[in-house]
Amino acid sequence: MKVIKFGGSSLSDGASFTNAINIITSDPERRVVVTSAPGKRYSDDIKVTDLLIKYAEMTMAKKDTTEIVTIIFNRYKEIGNFFGIADEELFVIRDILIDLANTDYPNNDYLMAAFKAHGERLNARLMAKILQAKGFNARFVDPLEVGLYVTGTPNNASVVPAAYRALRRFEFSDDEIIIFPGFFGVTLTKNIATFARGGSDITGAILARAFRADIYENFTDVDAIYSANPALVDNPYAIKKMTYREMRELSYAGFSVFHDEALIPAIGGNIPINVRNTNNPDAPGTLIVPENGFEPETTLTGIASSKNFGALYLHKYLLNKETGVTFRILEILNDLGISYEHMPSGIDDITIIFDKQFLTEEIVDELCTRIQKEIEPDRLEWIRNYAIIMMVGEGLAKRVGIIAPALQSLYDKGIDIQMVNQGASRISFMLGTKREDVDAAVKAIYDRFFNQEI
Amino acid sequence: MKVIKFGGSSLSDGASFTNAINIITSDPERRVVVTSAPGKRYSDDIKVTDLLIKYAEMTMAKKDTTEIVTIIFNRYKEIGNFFGIADEELFVIRDILIDLANTDYPNNDYLMAAFKAHGERLNARLMAKILQAKGFNARFVDPLEVGLYVTGTPNNASVVPAAYRALRRFEFSDDEIIIFPGFFGVTLTKNIATFARGGSDITGAILARAFRADIYENFTDVDAIYSANPALVDNPYAIKKMTYREMRELSYAGFSVFHDEALIPAIGGNIPINVRNTNNPDAPGTLIVPENGFEPETTLTGIASSKNFGALYLHKYLLNKETGVTFRILEILNDLGISYEHMPSGIDDITIIFDKQFLTEEIVDELCTRIQKEIEPDRLEWIRNYAIIMMVGEGLAKRVGIIAPALQSLYDKGIDIQMVNQGASRISFMLGTKREDVDAAVKAIYDRFFNQEI
Repeated sequence: MKVIKFGGSSLSDGASFTNAINIITSDPERRVVVTSAPGKRYSDDIKVTDLLIKYAEMTMAKKDTTEIVTIIFNRYKEIGNFFGIADEELFVIRDILIDLANTDYPNNDYLMAAFKAHGERLNARLMAKILQAKGFNARFVDPLEVGLYVTGTPNNASVVPAAYRALRRFEFSDDEIIIFPGFFGVTLTKNIATFARGGSDITGAILARAFRADIYENFTDVDAIYSANPALVDNPYAIKKMTYREMRELSYAGFSVFHDEALIPAIGGNIPINVRNTNNPDAPGTLIVPENGFEPETTLTGIASSKNFGALYLHKYLLNKETGVTFRILEILNDLGISYEHMPSGIDDITIIFDKQFLTEEIVDELCTRIQKEIEPDRLEWIRNYAIIMMVGEGLAKRVGIIAPALQSLYDKGIDIQMVNQGASRISFMLGTKREDVDAAVKAIYDRFFNQEI
Repeated sequence: MKVIKFGGSSLSDGASFTNAINIITSDPERRVVVTSAPGKRYSDDIKVTDLLIKYAEMTMAKKDTTEIVTIIFNRYKEIGNFFGIADEELFVIRDILIDLANTDYPNNDYLMAAFKAHGERLNARLMAKILQAKGFNARFVDPLEVGLYVTGTPNNASVVPAAYRALRRFEFSDDEIIIFPGFFGVTLTKNIATFARGGSDITGAILARAFRADIYENFTDVDAIYSANPALVDNPYAIKKMTYREMRELSYAGFSVFHDEALIPAIGGNIPINVRNTNNPDAPGTLIVPENGFEPETTLTGIASSKNFGALYLHKYLLNKETGVTFRILEILNDLGISYEHMPSGIDDITIIFDKQFLTEEIVDELCTRIQKEIEPDRLEWIRNYAIIMMVGEGLAKRVGIIAPALQSLYDKGIDIQMVNQGASRISFMLGTKREDVDAAVKAIYDRFFNQEI
């Protein structure tokens, strides 16, 4: 049995729905389908989720929402009509949209979550209706009805173990196709709460685990996960097979095809994930599998990079003899509510690497001021434009020396490396560079590992 | 003006005293001399400091100490007699030794400190007497008399700022040679307290700073500090010149010629340090200088290694999303009174590296148990035999890629590298290996950097 999930661009209009339906119905094992909200039909189109956010904001501001409701409804109507479904049969979607504004919510965060969730929720309803119209035994199933329980903040929820127990009690027959909306679950107090944005991947993984699927097929709009960013490297190799943890390391440094958090349920259930292309369903895509028994074909699986880092360099003689300096630095970070990414330490030096999305100029100023005052370093330097490169591959495990050609290629090109970190993870090698050097560095490393003999 | 310090092997018998005296008197700038306790005269000899420890233990145990006092006194008497000094003039040394056991101490720690300090204290007295007998204007000066103030534990004290103020009030004339015992100071409550073992280096550095010496000459029994351990590498290069921080990084990973903590006063006073050989005083030795204006002649200055490490490897999915995990690990370490050396972290992994001298099997067990229980990692592994290699050189700053050939040479030899850490210190590159691989690794790296063209 396969759980299959379609991304927003795979469910954005009649043509893409047709592709999706062909994929669903071409394999009787594809019995659970997770939908996203309709995505963009063309490059400057607006995603339905963004329209719903606007609708929610207008509702909170008590503005007239007639027009936005019509715009949203028309997205679904257009798809329904494409498959010959009459307007009358689709008005239920419009009614649900209108009802959204007339419902009570515990607070505006829950209001926002409920509005956003309807992009997926209504698309699943529509998909079920279209499949039924085509004569398939399809059934819309709602997360609230079967108990996909979540906890946490309304717009960044996490699944709880009770959800798996509830989902396992849900019964469906061998000839049914279950259509399940992605992206949201229900709190124990019966309110809708969504996962992080892009969270339909997470729903798919939860269902795959709960229903003990043989595979979780994740249909998106690329043929595969590539070994490097195609915007940086010409025709990068498509990754045929990789491990969960390779995917996770690459996600961390910028690979965004598959949602990071969706790996966890898959790992928990040992469910292989297959990332595939709705528009090219014959392509085998990329298979993400458990580490156990995995045999890497290449040394490196992928090279990721992310420019959004900053680093604080701190030098103080005898740092390593003053017990508790690191502890005091962590206390300052805790006080300021800052989390850090890495903290490579030497004898007299520490570099603290931050994801800049969590920092403002003011927080950096305060951090520097407090460290200056409380730690009294001999030298303190804030490196604003720090970038990170992750070279990832199961083939690296225990063979760190193999990374030598990468460093050599950067050295040959005169690219400065600020930081090298290996030894925590055994399958990745992390480099720090200045932002302006990172693209050239990725190209040089890719070239050395994928285009030349090692 | 030069402050000059002799190590224990340079003041162990009449012959080595002769060398030392020639060195002192051959340069009128050498006006402050710091003595160690008499060291070994031959390989299975016992150092006077160790005899004094035994004497202290026997005193505490209220045993008969007549014989041990005679043995200790004979070490000094032998040297005195070598220079034709009559026994009667030396009996003061015996009397001081006997008095040690009849003095009141605040506790046994202070008793131990006072006993140990007399190796240096009596050797300084003896040196002054011998120089006087030879017609030189030498003066024994006692740390208690001039106020070399220290604080901390009796056997691991640290200098306090008041010491510098007191030492600067001490006056001596241009034609005097001041003989000052190393290794100990005086607490504000007038008790003797010693530095860490080997701490005569520290005394010399404090005096060099206090008296604003032009240079601090540190006479020991090797021609220079070598770029690698001569027990591992045949005829390693002698380091002509290096910076304070290069010395410090190399000390950390096993270079033991010059006492680590002695660098701090020298750094504070910007005093160059010259490590030289008592037995080959014409050799220029190694000069340790401030970073400012230093121009490295080679890429690497030295390669050090130390086998006494252990590492804890911890893997937990989503580790980097659980805020405060590192903080909780540090709290556990704090609770158990364990300090750690480095903590390279990945996305889902942390490796914590420990200096094993601070750990027992029981503490490691308790640490693992608590981390298992409180952090619940997916995988936890204690790596018992961890070794560290430090490649150090000012020439490395900002040119990390240059390290590529080192990793290549290890890879070519099939040596596993467990950890690579760069980016904290800018002048060093740290590698982690298994203990059994470390010697071969040092040889390979040395060979690549010092015997081949890069």
